Amino acid sequence: MSIDWNTAFAPRALKLTASEIRELLKLINQPDIISFAGGIPDPALFPHAILAETFHEILSNPATRDAALQYSVSEGYQPLREWLAQTYLPKIGIATHADNILITNGSQQGLEFLAKLFIGTGDRIIVTNPSYLGALQAFSLYEPTFVTVPVQDDGVDLAALEAEMAKGAKFFYLTPDFGNPCGATVSLAQRRAMLELAYRYGIAIIEDSAYDQLRYDGEPVPPLLALDSDRLNQPRPLSEATAQGQVIYTGTFSKSIVPALRIGWIVAPQPVLQKLVLMKQASDLHTPTLNQMAMFKVAETIIFDHAAKIRAVYRERRDAMLTALNEFMPDGVSWTEPEGGMFVWVTLPEGLDAAEILAKSIAEIRVAFVPGAAFYPDRSGKNTIRLSFSVPPPEKVRDGIKRLGGLITEAVAALKVDA
Amino acid sequence: MSIDWNTAFAPRALKLTASEIRELLKLINQPDIISFAGGIPDPALFPHAILAETFHEILSNPATRDAALQYSVSEGYQPLREWLAQTYLPKIGIATHADNILITNGSQQGLEFLAKLFIGTGDRIIVTNPSYLGALQAFSLYEPTFVTVPVQDDGVDLAALEAEMAKGAKFFYLTPDFGNPCGATVSLAQRRAMLELAYRYGIAIIEDSAYDQLRYDGEPVPPLLALDSDRLNQPRPLSEATAQGQVIYTGTFSKSIVPALRIGWIVAPQPVLQKLVLMKQASDLHTPTLNQMAMFKVAETIIFDHAAKIRAVYRERRDAMLTALNEFMPDGVSWTEPEGGMFVWVTLPEGLDAAEILAKSIAEIRVAFVPGAAFYPDRSGKNTIRLSFSVPPPEKVRDGIKRLGGLITEAVAALKVDA
Repeated sequence: MSIDWNTAFAPRALKLTASEIRELLKLINQPDIISFAGGIPDPALFPHAILAETFHEILSNPATRDAALQYSVSEGYQPLREWLAQTYLPKIGIATHADNILITNGSQQGLEFLAKLFIGTGDRIIVTNPSYLGALQAFSLYEPTFVTVPVQDDGVDLAALEAEMAKGAKFFYLTPDFGNPCGATVSLAQRRAMLELAYRYGIAIIEDSAYDQLRYDGEPVPPLLALDSDRLNQPRPLSEATAQGQVIYTGTFSKSIVPALRIGWIVAPQPVLQKLVLMKQASDLHTPTLNQMAMFKVAETIIFDHAAKIRAVYRERRDAMLTALNEFMPDGVSWTEPEGGMFVWVTLPEGLDAAEILAKSIAEIRVAFVPGAAFYPDRSGKNTIRLSFSVPPPEKVRDGIKRLGGLITEAVAALKVDA
Repeated sequence: MSIDWNTAFAPRALKLTASEIRELLKLINQPDIISFAGGIPDPALFPHAILAETFHEILSNPATRDAALQYSVSEGYQPLREWLAQTYLPKIGIATHADNILITNGSQQGLEFLAKLFIGTGDRIIVTNPSYLGALQAFSLYEPTFVTVPVQDDGVDLAALEAEMAKGAKFFYLTPDFGNPCGATVSLAQRRAMLELAYRYGIAIIEDSAYDQLRYDGEPVPPLLALDSDRLNQPRPLSEATAQGQVIYTGTFSKSIVPALRIGWIVAPQPVLQKLVLMKQASDLHTPTLNQMAMFKVAETIIFDHAAKIRAVYRERRDAMLTALNEFMPDGVSWTEPEGGMFVWVTLPEGLDAAEILAKSIAEIRVAFVPGAAFYPDRSGKNTIRLSFSVPPPEKVRDGIKRLGGLITEAVAALKVDA
């Protein structure tokens, strides 16, 4: 009797389907393509020299090399946890303690762990519509009922959020700063209002802060986690790990230093963190120690200067994209003007299908992007597009948007003829 | 309304409880302790020089450094997958294809993924009794019904296995070569019989082969995966990825090179592997590319010579342990004589509690080990002990066993007085 794998798998395996972004990214490595698709950092900005030097130091020094290569604790490398708690996070307004931090394989693993910890089959979770695709993928494996609240340039629909929170949910997930995919930033007033709702209805908030170092203009808005801590009147810096609060925070060095060392973190109240540490142990024992030691050393040495440097580059590309959109997009097309991050979110006139435009765009004008529907749990948003400006230089950004503007102008004209 | 986390968590969170080994390992870093506890490689055997050199080469070379640090595909680094398929695995009798291989963060992540893919709440899974604790932890999060079959020095109880397979199960998990914890090796005849049962009842086998390079004497027994492939009459080497077979295989470099780069792999039929790749993407995107590139280069260059070198060291320690057990253990105590791996499994007379002996052992004679009950899904085996011989040098092994033998001799004598 041979195995029918499809019946052997658990029901959650049905949720494992290939993503549009993933399949698309396989096509766009041809050199003549201008890609606005992947949300990836520009490798030309990687701090190569200090990374090479740091790895060599750790691996050459008898005092560090064994610890870098041997099994270690699931919580993460202690000096990295302490530096995050004492130096890095306070700079963005967060008071916490090393014992509230778990090191993860990028923030993606943090989201997956939180899904595994909270979501029972059928449980309601609230997400913004649209949301980061990787979060939707991580959550969906645990078979939640997705409940969505709209998010646009001016933030999250609070009335919708309250209505859904009132019905109960395991958590509310959002990317409050120039989020993936739509580039919107949630205002301070909105953050306070969200927290009040979360307190009122007893609902946890997952704050995904992958782009925290990538603000190009405007004033920083305190993280929800910082506002949550303030409310508890915790001393700064905290003298011991906190068991209180309702915000769980995920961060990463993937956008600010390099992605492929896979170093991210979760900040959470003690009852949550204790469970997450045990989950980490059962999942992959620990994040590679060598990578943690190297990232600690590099981040401690360069992060704030380095972030300023990459911000200057990305800001220029964002500006090039916004300028080109103004110049080349036809009437009826709108877009966000993000204060940071990597993405501009474009809304086409109703009736246009971004997936169809993508097929044509790759074939005819060699420009790639991600159709927005992938980011909607309900697969609405067919007339939306995510454009990343992080990799192509400004002249390529302009050239690509010019081509895309032409294609969309034609599509809009055809739509009017049809109507 | 503040959150009651314990009701906010999914039911699976109840399975997240601290392990004895983990808590124990926190205590044994004092230098005067002789530890037979952790199943860890001796860091003095790590190939430091080539690791330092390889990382430096990759990170200094403009042709490799960007790929090493940028986001990458979830399947894993292609040259590593191909080398595993074409060179490494054939040396241990396995014919497979790169497209049947997923790179994971150590084999622990492989076990976690297989649990997530197969286990629905309440599903029956068959494990040996005792089993590797990390596997039990990974599986238990998905809330299976654990069904156990006894394993001892002479292998797995096949009648019990058939009885349980006949009732249906998602998979049967075992570590067939000098397994963790009990050191037993499953004979060729037993492997063939197990496979026949698996075919008869349509049940997948998960073969955990973490110790494949650590055989000290006796002839290698073909992996179950090799026997499974033979039955399918697949050409060697396979010209394309296979969709057939019932054995899923997990491997790692953690024991043969170093643990903390966290590089392992799963070999599986295509329908399984395709799901696992999507799961990897949702879980943490990909294993650190730099680590994969470095491990590929190091493994390709030294693995077989290096494995011969560490085998010589571990063999001597195993022999020292077996000699000392013969010399210092009282009548009524028995143990396995493993052909490889890192563990000797000791059975004390009924009525003795290894956990109590451990407490006394650490306090009085400064020797650490792991009480065997942790490895039994049903928490039986209170009179068993796992001893690891991989780290202490032979004279310390002898000294530790001498002390432990004295303590156990006293305990046996006290038991007789009580009776």
